Amino acid sequence: VAEAEALAALAQAAGVSLFTAWHSREAAGVTPARQWLANQEIRAVRIDWKEDVRVWHPGQRWISSPGGFGVFDPGINALSILTDIIPDRVRVLSAELHQPADWRSPIAAHIAMETASGVPIAAEFDFRQSGPQSWDIRVEAAGGELLLSHGGDRLAIDGVPQSVGARGEYTALYRRFGQLVRDRATHVDLRPLQLVADCFLCASTQPADAFAY
Amino acid sequence: VAEAEALAALAQAAGVSLFTAWHSREAAGVTPARQWLANQEIRAVRIDWKEDVRVWHPGQRWISSPGGFGVFDPGINALSILTDIIPDRVRVLSAELHQPADWRSPIAAHIAMETASGVPIAAEFDFRQSGPQSWDIRVEAAGGELLLSHGGDRLAIDGVPQSVGARGEYTALYRRFGQLVRDRATHVDLRPLQLVADCFLCASTQPADAFAY
Repeated sequence: VAEAEALAALAQAAGVSLFTAWHSREAAGVTPARQWLANQEIRAVRIDWKEDVRVWHPGQRWISSPGGFGVFDPGINALSILTDIIPDRVRVLSAELHQPADWRSPIAAHIAMETASGVPIAAEFDFRQSGPQSWDIRVEAAGGELLLSHGGDRLAIDGVPQSVGARGEYTALYRRFGQLVRDRATHVDLRPLQLVADCFLCASTQPADAFAY
Repeated sequence: VAEAEALAALAQAAGVSLFTAWHSREAAGVTPARQWLANQEIRAVRIDWKEDVRVWHPGQRWISSPGGFGVFDPGINALSILTDIIPDRVRVLSAELHQPADWRSPIAAHIAMETASGVPIAAEFDFRQSGPQSWDIRVEAAGGELLLSHGGDRLAIDGVPQSVGARGEYTALYRRFGQLVRDRATHVDLRPLQLVADCFLCASTQPADAFAY
């Protein structure tokens, strides 16, 4: 995080653009979700981000190495959406990490967070999900329950699918970056990475069964 | 870290003072060290922060618990001095942590850091130091070698002790806080905590022998 902050200072000094790109924020449902939540009284948030590391990262040793983040590699995508759609600041209360005997990073995490105004946020990350994959964020609000699913691509309110259009995350990402470069502007948002660092800082790490991938 | 950032935002919104106090920065040698280094070409930094947990924290279970920081509880004091006396930004390159079988936090750490301009910084933290205790920061600069020892209380340049006066850390700390309150001003500097979080984020954790205290 300190390295990213140093980069931001360098970019500013050099007058060049810096973009801390979070691809999942470009998923089609994220902006409509943020807009719907902007005027809602939010009561609770639940994140389930569970995928099969054997499908998505077969043999990629870096992900189970120190500094590889383990399940936070996908999990940070959920945190990037969370911090984009919830207007309030988020802090970590506790993080229980599960580390297989043959891994040097966590394969699963149970995280308790809270907004500055006290809204509870629970997140479950797991790399051992076989079958259907879960990339879901549920927000209970006074006006109904919002569900962002499929990694942010689909949005439903009280179970009713909302029309969000379709767009590619990376197409939108590069379009945004191009605009920043043309404007010589900078967009730096380190909150998702900060939450990951805070999870590791206060982590209670438990052993888990060895897990080859 | 995100929680501290949220506190800073709350303090600003409420118009009250917030002071992220770092007691070791108030040690007598720290300000003279910063002043001497301000115009120096710095070449390397070496930190040795080694103390006996059995002397300073006997039976304090929180320190070996998750989120208790382990040896980073004293080590953050060294990082608070480092970030105060080195003008350049500091980032973590790697952190090897040693965790006893009966601890949930590290008892020792070997940390490689670097300033934005590439100056290497090595830090050794250890809670298993019996006999003389080490709270030393050495800075190799073009104009000589600076040594801050005794936790910042003593300063020497090329082996020659410098007169730094004597003052109590907490007396200076509360005086500073009082002034901030009277001025309704805020002093927030999270860099020491950020470096600790970054160490945990990229940590390579090794097992160590059980260590009762």
